[in-house]
Amino acid sequence: MLVVAALGGNALLERGEAVTAENQRDNVKKAMHALADVVRAGHQLVITHGNGPQIGLLALQNDAYDSDKTFPLDILGAETEGMIGYLLEQELENQLGESHAVATLLTQIAVDPDDPAFAQPTKFIGPVYDKDEAEELKNKHGWDIAQDGDKWRRVVPSPEPQKIQDLKVLKILLQQQVITICIGGGGIPIVRQEHGTYTGVEAVIDKDAASALLAEQVDAEALLLLTDVDAVYKNFGEPDEQAIGRMTIDEAKDFDAPSGSMGPKIAAAARFARSGKFAAIGRLEDALKILEGNAGTRISDEN
Amino acid sequence: MLVVAALGGNALLERGEAVTAENQRDNVKKAMHALADVVRAGHQLVITHGNGPQIGLLALQNDAYDSDKTFPLDILGAETEGMIGYLLEQELENQLGESHAVATLLTQIAVDPDDPAFAQPTKFIGPVYDKDEAEELKNKHGWDIAQDGDKWRRVVPSPEPQKIQDLKVLKILLQQQVITICIGGGGIPIVRQEHGTYTGVEAVIDKDAASALLAEQVDAEALLLLTDVDAVYKNFGEPDEQAIGRMTIDEAKDFDAPSGSMGPKIAAAARFARSGKFAAIGRLEDALKILEGNAGTRISDEN
Repeated sequence: MLVVAALGGNALLERGEAVTAENQRDNVKKAMHALADVVRAGHQLVITHGNGPQIGLLALQNDAYDSDKTFPLDILGAETEGMIGYLLEQELENQLGESHAVATLLTQIAVDPDDPAFAQPTKFIGPVYDKDEAEELKNKHGWDIAQDGDKWRRVVPSPEPQKIQDLKVLKILLQQQVITICIGGGGIPIVRQEHGTYTGVEAVIDKDAASALLAEQVDAEALLLLTDVDAVYKNFGEPDEQAIGRMTIDEAKDFDAPSGSMGPKIAAAARFARSGKFAAIGRLEDALKILEGNAGTRISDEN
Repeated sequence: MLVVAALGGNALLERGEAVTAENQRDNVKKAMHALADVVRAGHQLVITHGNGPQIGLLALQNDAYDSDKTFPLDILGAETEGMIGYLLEQELENQLGESHAVATLLTQIAVDPDDPAFAQPTKFIGPVYDKDEAEELKNKHGWDIAQDGDKWRRVVPSPEPQKIQDLKVLKILLQQQVITICIGGGGIPIVRQEHGTYTGVEAVIDKDAASALLAEQVDAEALLLLTDVDAVYKNFGEPDEQAIGRMTIDEAKDFDAPSGSMGPKIAAAARFARSGKFAAIGRLEDALKILEGNAGTRISDEN
């Protein structure tokens, strides 16, 4: 079946791990091992990925070199599509050999310039800081900051993805059985201007939301939202916590997700599941098991 | 006809201009105007581009933020494919509207790990410096440096491109009439390891050499090497300088090119012209005129 597999930032770097070439290569190796199993089982794959730690790092690097000439987030997002896409593609090619063609396609996604998200930044990027340090960086760089667990991080606007600009090209690649890495970091965010032209905008789209839109539009049969947690949990972190094997769409809507990225994941899965397809959340290493119904949390409109 | 158009670094930034988002967007607009004319005249286009100023900047940004955790040149090269590919694609899409599909494909190119270029760095990257400043940076960062005109710059190894890894995917896109931006910065340089796997390597491939290889392998009818000089000149810079309209392959081989990038351009054009096809060097703004034989320097094996 045609599967869209979305890799969380935590699938590419362990939580808190520094964004180095070596750390990324180590994690990418494990990630692509899991996805190569999905390919070998006969499924066709589209791979998407987050970019929170990476785009945050590039912004800091820009600033450290010349704070008057930093690139906007759309350009930095494009850079992360290059960096991460390359690491993923190379490792997947190494694991699959010449049996399958793999491509990385830059992807722009249009958002609404009036999206309320622009006034309410919520998307975490870059490293975590102690509160004092975060306040200092806020004042220095004009950042918005917010609490992430017991630490603080920079936040940027995360508007809803509206239109995948490169959909036609992606469909051509899928028709030809090319494993395609795309909408990295949720896609490069752009807005339509007067006269119908497009330009970049300062935002980071949620990659789970973008992946759900993509899965719908390429008519995928399954959407896997892969992270470092094995399932959605009831009472997560409490003594009576319990992994949930299946949720209906209604249950997903009512679910009180803990802070962090689980809420957007459940929303994205429920969005795709509406069409009666397979949507699930789970651990990256379990990708094939999840697809076979033997791991993770499946969200569907059946009971 | 199928045309490979290679954009020099000087086509994306004026000589000496800072690598800012705004400067790049301004130059990309002019560049894509010229290439949109080629598309509207009915030709099919593959676009390649250099990355010298950009990859040099990313290396400096890395270093300014954390000199112990810099990314190697293959990863920085992948980042520039994202950055520049995005700017080119967005502007070309804006100029062409919905009439044509445009895609940016990340491209890895295999080089020989024993290429003598690794011991003799020649490829200029990043900004120009006065000699004293360059010497200081050499000592600080362990760079190799070399003279570029009356200034000094960092130089890195530039091995010969051997094999385009993503050729199969590129051919699929071309068969479907997709205008494709690829082998940015000469391609991401990789080497084959034991057991047949590939990994990145610290180098920057010459984008004209890579473009000539690509043009051969996709069976293009024309290779345009586009820069900010209107033609190859006899006695360039002298009072009796003279633009050359046509050169044979033998004349190209014997040509005493001034320092800088003209030598590699002439070599790349001569390499492709061997197959009896159209190879030419000239100003980016003249792209269509060059293709029609009314501008630039054509190198061919006919007389």
